[in-house]
Amino acid sequence: MSEPVHAPITITAFERSPDRGKGLARDMRVRWALEEVGQPYNVRLVSFGEMKEPAHLSLHPFGQIPTYEEGDLVLFESGAILFHIAERYQGLLPRDADARARAIMWIFAALNTIEPPIIDRGVTLMLERDESWYEQRLAAIDDRIRVRLGELSRRLGDADWLDGAFRAGDLMTVEVLRRLSGSGLLEEYPNLSAYVARAEARPAFKRAFAAQLAVFERSQKEGENDAD
Amino acid sequence: MSEPVHAPITITAFERSPDRGKGLARDMRVRWALEEVGQPYNVRLVSFGEMKEPAHLSLHPFGQIPTYEEGDLVLFESGAILFHIAERYQGLLPRDADARARAIMWIFAALNTIEPPIIDRGVTLMLERDESWYEQRLAAIDDRIRVRLGELSRRLGDADWLDGAFRAGDLMTVEVLRRLSGSGLLEEYPNLSAYVARAEARPAFKRAFAAQLAVFERSQKEGENDAD
Repeated sequence: MSEPVHAPITITAFERSPDRGKGLARDMRVRWALEEVGQPYNVRLVSFGEMKEPAHLSLHPFGQIPTYEEGDLVLFESGAILFHIAERYQGLLPRDADARARAIMWIFAALNTIEPPIIDRGVTLMLERDESWYEQRLAAIDDRIRVRLGELSRRLGDADWLDGAFRAGDLMTVEVLRRLSGSGLLEEYPNLSAYVARAEARPAFKRAFAAQLAVFERSQKEGENDAD
Repeated sequence: MSEPVHAPITITAFERSPDRGKGLARDMRVRWALEEVGQPYNVRLVSFGEMKEPAHLSLHPFGQIPTYEEGDLVLFESGAILFHIAERYQGLLPRDADARARAIMWIFAALNTIEPPIIDRGVTLMLERDESWYEQRLAAIDDRIRVRLGELSRRLGDADWLDGAFRAGDLMTVEVLRRLSGSGLLEEYPNLSAYVARAEARPAFKRAFAAQLAVFERSQKEGENDAD
């Protein structure tokens, strides 16, 4: 049986990622998923200015990246794009109906239960560093993150992945946990650190990481040339 | 063609909802979805204490409500439960593949792009009211919420629903917007207010709302009897 022919896939990513090539922007989730299922893709880079212009807003009403274009289909929201890829191509969702529902559940859990205090931390680091309440708020947020990490750590236990083999829910959970890099919080939970390391060792992750890093390195070089 | 026979559905909800029957707790999303697809369900009420005990944690590792049980399948996370109901029963997802992907996309957008600053507002109201920074933080959060509401308002325009007929993505978006009730923010965007009102007028919404209100009223009556 031959693979069905699909329209070419194009995603968007930051022209100059604010994470400086650490692979923490949300295009990484989509790149990694496409690498896991073995689908080639094109990348269109957008600047912060372009993200808020009508052409991009017609694809993504909230003016962010990533977007996903495939023939007439246009999607935004990294969770929705991951789900679409996982449903359309083999490898990221199990065939058993109940196991499939649980893999999808973990995508939602990563995005709606684990990520919110982690995003809150990022917003606080970025916007509130000079405020009088900065230290106190940051400590409170870190405690909220620890509650979630503790619960996740207990659920994972000594398993390799959240529910059997590596699935879409693991991909999103790892992506969310990676946003804690540099905070020291993840290291308080050795089984979660090992879980993230295990995922980062996957060849598909490495290919996706290298692809987004190459974009950053190119933007740096162009920046140097601009400065000449 | 007769409907396939499914195992009975049991969900969990707060024994005493902190919203005092306003239907803002996350069981409302699941009740509403089940009413839209015409599936009966049982409700098991849990106290705040029980939510953190092993029996409930075995269903929901983050110790929250709602959970969803159907035969051997156990799900948590309201987005995942809504998706499962929408996929299993007819009415909440279109048949066309691209339109289906977009309806699912709006579930993710509601939970991961629109809801986070709204939840942040709720956390701030609850935990930071006595802090020196309360007014300043609240104003900043409200501005972040306005950015999202403005973008959503522009995308909705004068349409009744986000993408054709009422779908799972509308259900979740409306549920997230309803969390702003009492803030005055939603009223700044007349098309979003009308969108929420349109959804609340649906018979399925009304049945779900009445069901959760009855739980609250019963808990109030029992509270009075306890006080005797």
